[in-house]
Amino acid sequence: MTTITNREIHLAQAPTGMPEPAHFSMVETQITPPADQILVKNLYMSVDPAMRPALSNGQTKVGAVMQGGAIGRVEQSANPDFPEGSYVIHRCGFREFHVTDGRDLRLVKTEGESLTTHLHVLGGTGLTAYGGLLVTGELKDNENVFVSAAAGAVGSVVCQIAKIKGCRVAASCGSDEKVAYLQDQLGVDYAFNYKTQSISKSLRAGLPEGIDVYFENVGGAHLDAACGQMRPLGRIPVCGMISAYNNKGARSEGVTTLSNMIYNRVTMKGFVVYEFDHLREQFLSDMRSWIADGRMQYSETIMDGIEQAPAALIGLLQGQNTGKMLVKLADDA
Amino acid sequence: MTTITNREIHLAQAPTGMPEPAHFSMVETQITPPADQILVKNLYMSVDPAMRPALSNGQTKVGAVMQGGAIGRVEQSANPDFPEGSYVIHRCGFREFHVTDGRDLRLVKTEGESLTTHLHVLGGTGLTAYGGLLVTGELKDNENVFVSAAAGAVGSVVCQIAKIKGCRVAASCGSDEKVAYLQDQLGVDYAFNYKTQSISKSLRAGLPEGIDVYFENVGGAHLDAACGQMRPLGRIPVCGMISAYNNKGARSEGVTTLSNMIYNRVTMKGFVVYEFDHLREQFLSDMRSWIADGRMQYSETIMDGIEQAPAALIGLLQGQNTGKMLVKLADDA
Repeated sequence: MTTITNREIHLAQAPTGMPEPAHFSMVETQITPPADQILVKNLYMSVDPAMRPALSNGQTKVGAVMQGGAIGRVEQSANPDFPEGSYVIHRCGFREFHVTDGRDLRLVKTEGESLTTHLHVLGGTGLTAYGGLLVTGELKDNENVFVSAAAGAVGSVVCQIAKIKGCRVAASCGSDEKVAYLQDQLGVDYAFNYKTQSISKSLRAGLPEGIDVYFENVGGAHLDAACGQMRPLGRIPVCGMISAYNNKGARSEGVTTLSNMIYNRVTMKGFVVYEFDHLREQFLSDMRSWIADGRMQYSETIMDGIEQAPAALIGLLQGQNTGKMLVKLADDA
Repeated sequence: MTTITNREIHLAQAPTGMPEPAHFSMVETQITPPADQILVKNLYMSVDPAMRPALSNGQTKVGAVMQGGAIGRVEQSANPDFPEGSYVIHRCGFREFHVTDGRDLRLVKTEGESLTTHLHVLGGTGLTAYGGLLVTGELKDNENVFVSAAAGAVGSVVCQIAKIKGCRVAASCGSDEKVAYLQDQLGVDYAFNYKTQSISKSLRAGLPEGIDVYFENVGGAHLDAACGQMRPLGRIPVCGMISAYNNKGARSEGVTTLSNMIYNRVTMKGFVVYEFDHLREQFLSDMRSWIADGRMQYSETIMDGIEQAPAALIGLLQGQNTGKMLVKLADDA
């Protein structure tokens, strides 16, 4: 039993607005993994908008290590389900090493693709997009789809699945570079920068027939504009509301157009990714084939070293990423 | 073929806020019903919140006769499906007589109950409450239910069905008299006057475990308070948003708590009563048995004469009614 030096990120103080570096602290611990446990060396960790509400609603305790998805390599194992050298996904990111009996691990089997894809297109954010759009959103071929935070890890997959299904897609994002990425790289029909364009007018221009499915990642003004333009029997799968997460109680800007839900019989439905666990095999099969034939692109923004994890989360909340925001914790060696 | 004098209410001008008498006009016409048609003498007409948006969104044309549910007696008929003396329901209220080939009529078979009940507990508002709560709201026994506009025609039926299903019921209304009616007559567990009490605090007091089903009739501040207190897998069937109907575009006060829909996986769903047409026989059977055993009470506010129809609609929008707002158009003679 060797003792290992481990660094981890703790919540130092619960933020009330946009998190700042001072809300986090890096703590060094010594780990001596018992022989009957599994030692995982984390290689990459995922940074997700949903981490923000957990900092203020008591889910992450002040003084405790942060939680988040990560992929690691098994360094030492007494469990034949997770042999040494295998790759595993778990929820204990924000630390360099993870010691576990294995019950919280899921084995990752790569088929030539990069490890990091299992934290986005082939992982949680991919499955979120896939299930949220096809199951919660009940997407039908050739519908009119609006996606917000469309250049993010979830939004970019939603846009591309909708295009694969023959839909017309409008997409919002927060910079002109992202507009170009969405239109030129991902094939979105109409992308716009919500910081410089009217959301309502952009939606009327991009989806003149109205919206069948609004994949909601932002909330507030986005939802206010979109809900007023929903078509009969429209669906709004609610994946996230990043515009609200830095506000007390995760309150968004006021949404005033909900009465359109009545006569147009619109359904708005919150969901979380674990609802789609039973679809994982079909999801992996579909996504791998779409990646192989070039119809599913992805982008990564990778920051280096666990000391960058707070900055990565803050950057994500400020929209600095295109595609998936990751932190590299160690070389795969 | 006799010529009959008929009075009807037209929309004179589309209102932009609360309707006023000057927005309506009464027009006298002469009718000579062809021998192959059905002449219906309207006895009572229904007055409903949903009539308000129709005045501003172009559904009711300026200069045209208003639309709305009514019950009448067949005075003259060439159609054996609707013999003279039978009672019929149709959508051509706001006039004293209705001439039709019968395709827009539904025969009413009374079983001892008053005719007017077929315009509320046994009619459209009753079926709205029944389907909205049990089908759209997927009510389960013993849940925690919040009903807004609870002393109205729909809300009062929702409260009582929820009580019949063993639920704990909180209810909002706009006067202390209605609070007493809801608690003392209808058996609501916790009623409050939203004009004098905080909606959020009242909900925490009345439903301390949170809300499983919020039957939405009001929108705006009501939804803002309720959505923040929804329990996991909660449902919000959206029947109406009367607080918004006098605003441009039927915009409500801002709702800021929708992010609670995500982690609690809440569903909000707009519906209209025609979705439940296939349930009408079961609905009538259930409601008649509940009325017979005293578990389904109802109240009517009846104004007299077609010239009162605009005042009845304005009064409804101001909350003057308890239970169903009706206008009596003629004696059943």
